[in-house]
Amino acid sequence: MSVVFEPVGYVRTEATTLPRHWSVSDVEGELVVDDAYATGLEGIEPGKRIVVLFHFNESSPFSLTSLRQRPPHAGGDKKGVFATCSPHRPNGIGLSVVTVLERTGTVIRVKGIDMRNNTPILDIKPDVRP
Amino acid sequence: MSVVFEPVGYVRTEATTLPRHWSVSDVEGELVVDDAYATGLEGIEPGKRIVVLFHFNESSPFSLTSLRQRPPHAGGDKKGVFATCSPHRPNGIGLSVVTVLERTGTVIRVKGIDMRNNTPILDIKPDVRP
Repeated sequence: MSVVFEPVGYVRTEATTLPRHWSVSDVEGELVVDDAYATGLEGIEPGKRIVVLFHFNESSPFSLTSLRQRPPHAGGDKKGVFATCSPHRPNGIGLSVVTVLERTGTVIRVKGIDMRNNTPILDIKPDVRP
Repeated sequence: MSVVFEPVGYVRTEATTLPRHWSVSDVEGELVVDDAYATGLEGIEPGKRIVVLFHFNESSPFSLTSLRQRPPHAGGDKKGVFATCSPHRPNGIGLSVVTVLERTGTVIRVKGIDMRNNTPILDIKPDVRP
């Protein structure tokens, strides 16, 4: 039973080299959300941390031969793909937690980018931690 | 440009009442992953915290009239949907962080469930925090 989503926006960044993970990134960029969703962004303000779910649209289709992968920089053994943040996964959904620097209408300037320019955004959520 | 995903498994729980958010849940349940992905789960072991992305399959189709919502229990004003964890959102992707209690093959017993029985699972990731 397939699940179909339409991107709500895209990532804009001038960075050509990106860190391998948001947790070590201080790259800045913008989340450009479709105008139709403008009022849905109320409450996303500077200083807040938000979760961005996005589509790994540049990854090749997943093959079951990639169920075990060796994470870069982690050294050592292969791991199951669900125990890694690999962009090459059964459903190519990426997750990054970024910090809001500024919001101007539907353009959210953020710090902590690890997505490429033009990456489709699927969802934005508050970063809720107990 | 639509993005299409196929669930990789589903949530199994006997709980009939669920907390409103994983951050306040100690409900136990199981993530039942399709056998085809068995080796993809290597490294998901007891004690680890994992991120589960799932489909809010019981939510009605999103309408732009719901761009501002009043979060339950939060009191006060409406917020933009992207500043809430509402299940009624443009792309119905849910996110919960749960703790692994046990893994037997492709069945992961976890604590911290806030999904209903039979919820389709889209992805599982390690909970990576700096």
